[in-house]
Amino acid sequence: MINKLVDRIKELEAPIVVGLDPTLAILPKHLLEREIKERGETLEAAAEAIWQFNKGIIDAVCDLVPAVKPQVAMYEQFGIPGLSVFKRTIDYCKEKGLIVIGDVKRGDIGSTSEAYAIGHLGKVHIGNKMLSGFDEDFITVNPYFGTDGIKPFIGVCKKEKKGIFVLVKTSNESSGEFQDQEINERRLYECVADKVAEWGEALMGHTYSYVGAVIGATYPRMARELRGMIPNTFFLVPAYGAQGATAKDVKEAFHKDGTGAVVNSSRGIIAAYKQQKYQEFGEEGFADAAREAVLHMKKDIASVF
Amino acid sequence: MINKLVDRIKELEAPIVVGLDPTLAILPKHLLEREIKERGETLEAAAEAIWQFNKGIIDAVCDLVPAVKPQVAMYEQFGIPGLSVFKRTIDYCKEKGLIVIGDVKRGDIGSTSEAYAIGHLGKVHIGNKMLSGFDEDFITVNPYFGTDGIKPFIGVCKKEKKGIFVLVKTSNESSGEFQDQEINERRLYECVADKVAEWGEALMGHTYSYVGAVIGATYPRMARELRGMIPNTFFLVPAYGAQGATAKDVKEAFHKDGTGAVVNSSRGIIAAYKQQKYQEFGEEGFADAAREAVLHMKKDIASVF
Repeated sequence: MINKLVDRIKELEAPIVVGLDPTLAILPKHLLEREIKERGETLEAAAEAIWQFNKGIIDAVCDLVPAVKPQVAMYEQFGIPGLSVFKRTIDYCKEKGLIVIGDVKRGDIGSTSEAYAIGHLGKVHIGNKMLSGFDEDFITVNPYFGTDGIKPFIGVCKKEKKGIFVLVKTSNESSGEFQDQEINERRLYECVADKVAEWGEALMGHTYSYVGAVIGATYPRMARELRGMIPNTFFLVPAYGAQGATAKDVKEAFHKDGTGAVVNSSRGIIAAYKQQKYQEFGEEGFADAAREAVLHMKKDIASVF
Repeated sequence: MINKLVDRIKELEAPIVVGLDPTLAILPKHLLEREIKERGETLEAAAEAIWQFNKGIIDAVCDLVPAVKPQVAMYEQFGIPGLSVFKRTIDYCKEKGLIVIGDVKRGDIGSTSEAYAIGHLGKVHIGNKMLSGFDEDFITVNPYFGTDGIKPFIGVCKKEKKGIFVLVKTSNESSGEFQDQEINERRLYECVADKVAEWGEALMGHTYSYVGAVIGATYPRMARELRGMIPNTFFLVPAYGAQGATAKDVKEAFHKDGTGAVVNSSRGIIAAYKQQKYQEFGEEGFADAAREAVLHMKKDIASVF
């Protein structure tokens, strides 16, 4: 799956992931109003409106980008109806040929991580059948438990030829509170990065490992250092656009040949229609605005290489 | 909710949480067979069998313990049907007067943590209504993102009078890989513990804060140090029983007066019928065996005070 991601980025000349992180505040009003009319003020109405929104976005961008990254929290907030739409979104994206990165940031002790790995990447035995729960291609994983919380994910990835992205240096303002703490003259996120590279050795694709890293674009100097430090680890880079990072910032997460990373944008694309720049599209044209924003992002990133 | 937990522990003389972490391997065979007959080899059959199992356990222990802790990963592995049973389990436990600790270990950047907080502890606005997604009383939270990944949980807890338990020192073997690293002569988990106490100051109950900590019983010396270090933080203590910690080990997580912590046991209780000690109950008597195991655990813990 990491090879497929690398290849598709090259084919489409788009190291871009579209973050499918819908909230009701982002949705064009008519979508929710229509569903409320039909289903009342219910979780089901909200979930269905989000599904309609996602479908519009996916149809509009699926020929432009290699991958999408639904953030499960945005669906979990609507309980079971929300998570059903998370699953429907995964299935639809895969139908459309997109690689799906489930942004779930799971992680626990070994036996529990095993259950998460099975649920999101693997298959569960029921009688004589092997069935999938969510079936993403990649998921994000939290490293706080250390090696034995990560190993089950690697085991399932090996079997399924899927991958994970482990949190190394996150994009948020207080990420340094623990991640930047100095341990024997190295920072915690560097210790995590070392481990990510070590875990990844057992699971190499053609150039990059199936075990990738999440590196926030809001810390470009650190991204550059990490890029040199763990050259065979593929980077998933959030925080371009709405979170403030520029094309120049994200460039630091790439090798000089322009490979080795994929950049996520969520609100900057899916809520593009709300920006002055794309206002001509209007609420009804939210999907076309998203397509335009992807094309713009593609050009913007290409301009720095 | 932290006051209610403290009071119920006292009333029942049981600082005990039953971990509802069912797997198909733990389930008595007849439960799954019956459901497969009716629903085929499907996720729905597995989920329904788990629901029947949970209901049996809950009915058998609900008058003995203050709280249960369903581990969401065990449900997530069965996709949407599994998560529907997670929700049904939460609702049923609350009906039975049990406090529900959702063991979800969520955590992300602020806006995403907000969505998790709403989904698990709070309410989401849909039109003019405020609706709950999962509605646990407490959840567990991962601290890797630092303060701004935790604040949204605290905001929702304040509004809903609910609580969180933040991972500090986890029970697994490799927990020390990052958590024990030394930073200015203190260990990472101690730095996290300091922050947990600081976060908790804004949200104090009568004696303990609504912001608690997860402290694995497999590291009793560390538990004792932490107990002294952050006296107003309530501890959720996993790893008694199946993971190897004894009553003497868990004692270290308590204050001398026997308060300040609650001990989880999962497999040790829900799979008690598989132990030689409880074999007289047989597969059909799995719930009675669980009740017996709770009574035994209660006595075992009381014996060290």
